[in-house]
Amino acid sequence: MEGFAFSTEIQVRFAETDAQGIAHHASFVVWFEVARVAYLEAFAGGYAAIRERGLEALTTQVDVRYHRAAYFDDRLTIWTRCADLRGARFRYEYRVVRGDELVAEGFTSHATVDRETYRPTRVPTWLADAVATAESGSA
Amino acid sequence: MEGFAFSTEIQVRFAETDAQGIAHHASFVVWFEVARVAYLEAFAGGYAAIRERGLEALTTQVDVRYHRAAYFDDRLTIWTRCADLRGARFRYEYRVVRGDELVAEGFTSHATVDRETYRPTRVPTWLADAVATAESGSA
Amino acid sequence: MEGFAFSTEIQVRFAETDAQGIAHHASFVVWFEVARVAYLEAFAGGYAAIRERGLEALTTQVDVRYHRAAYFDDRLTIWTRCADLRGARFRYEYRVVRGDELVAEGFTSHATVDRETYRPTRVPTWLADAVATAESGSA
Amino acid sequence: MEGFAFSTEIQVRFAETDAQGIAHHASFVVWFEVARVAYLEAFAGGYAAIRERGLEALTTQVDVRYHRAAYFDDRLTIWTRCADLRGARFRYEYRVVRGDELVAEGFTSHATVDRETYRPTRVPTWLADAVATAESGSA
Repeated sequence: MEGFAFSTEIQVRFAETDAQGIAHHASFVVWFEVARVAYLEAFAGGYAAIRERGLEALTTQVDVRYHRAAYFDDRLTIWTRCADLRGARFRYEYRVVRGDELVAEGFTSHATVDRETYRPTRVPTWLADAVATAESGSA
Repeated sequence: MEGFAFSTEIQVRFAETDAQGIAHHASFVVWFEVARVAYLEAFAGGYAAIRERGLEALTTQVDVRYHRAAYFDDRLTIWTRCADLRGARFRYEYRVVRGDELVAEGFTSHATVDRETYRPTRVPTWLADAVATAESGSA
Repeated sequence: MEGFAFSTEIQVRFAETDAQGIAHHASFVVWFEVARVAYLEAFAGGYAAIRERGLEALTTQVDVRYHRAAYFDDRLTIWTRCADLRGARFRYEYRVVRGDELVAEGFTSHATVDRETYRPTRVPTWLADAVATAESGSA
Repeated sequence: MEGFAFSTEIQVRFAETDAQGIAHHASFVVWFEVARVAYLEAFAGGYAAIRERGLEALTTQVDVRYHRAAYFDDRLTIWTRCADLRGARFRYEYRVVRGDELVAEGFTSHATVDRETYRPTRVPTWLADAVATAESGSA
């Protein structure tokens, strides 16, 4: 997908559906997180690397717009990019597609904090560089 | 809370926490739904009344901004109001507080559809009236 | 309910239902935990008291037998008792009812460990005594 | 694993962890379901095939014994077999391993019902045969 350097796949679990017969809307928030974790694993040594260096990434905002229902067993592709990484803040953007169909899109905003003090801490250079390299591939 | 006619209480479940030691951010999306269901029960005969009349309310957008972490066993108050009910669309707004502290805020947007055809269907007058009455109390 | 000293109430959330139109079977495992937390709060200063004293209660077994489906918005009563508390181990038993109907029953087994070392640690006397007092009321 | 014809892989999601820093025990119940769905997809045309033929598989019992904690990002293998398929009832058994370590084991029992009437209905021959063929490979 244009502008997106990375994608991950999920398959809708039965436990993620609801009595409307569709994937519950909160499931997408979990899938966004799955996509971020996979992104960090692909490009920056994984979320574990961040935690090992004494950092924690907090989620400060989540926004999801739902365009089509997703159903049990659907295979969905989550296109993911990291944007606007500056200081202690960064933002991810997502497009969830099923084949040619746009199922949902959204973004999450995050702040990097020290794991002990929970004070905002600049995203370390190695991580910012890894993200910049990853995203330059999608230019 | 000024401008909000209704609140409901939740208590953070252990299953809703994550390895950061806080309530997982997706939990708030579920709590917003709990608050909507309680709102409809208080003012409009419950969500069941809507479904019995052949309607389904789809969620078209979710937005949450997180201001403070919530912890296991925290008692949170979710202030809830229904805004911008027009045609087949309506929107809920939320403030999640713990005592005096604003923990999170957000909104959800919804579309009313026919349960069989999934075509957009105007919010029925009885429901719009019930909401208008509920919200006029907070003017 | 005979033999049960304590009960707590839950209301089935929409997010807890699945595409069969019923509460997903994993939800009961979460409700059992909600019931244990409420039990400890009623009788033993809460789960927080246990954690503050440097202990953690691990779950070593879960067993649920499902007799009837539970549905969105159902109000369920979870009868709960603590049995077989000895050494570092204890067990909870549950009956989930909707009015006169037995919806599900089950048990969970737990081990008390030191929070730092994760080595088994005897259930402290104050907790064992609190449970014994609570359960003697149901004799 | 001896006696098991099938395995599927899962990776522990951050949303599946809890404030003890480990995968929440209810997550295993969801993973068992993921494993059943993968098993049916591999051997019997998928769960969708069952539902399309007017059947629903209800869960009548879940039992999990936890031997070791699972952690965020752990890759776990879920060995799965279908046992005791007779009449309208069948049972799955599971071993969850991380490398050489047994993390958990358990079983789930199920009943096949007609989707409309919810009356018990024999497991259809095609499904019983598919399972028998799958399991004979592990003899």
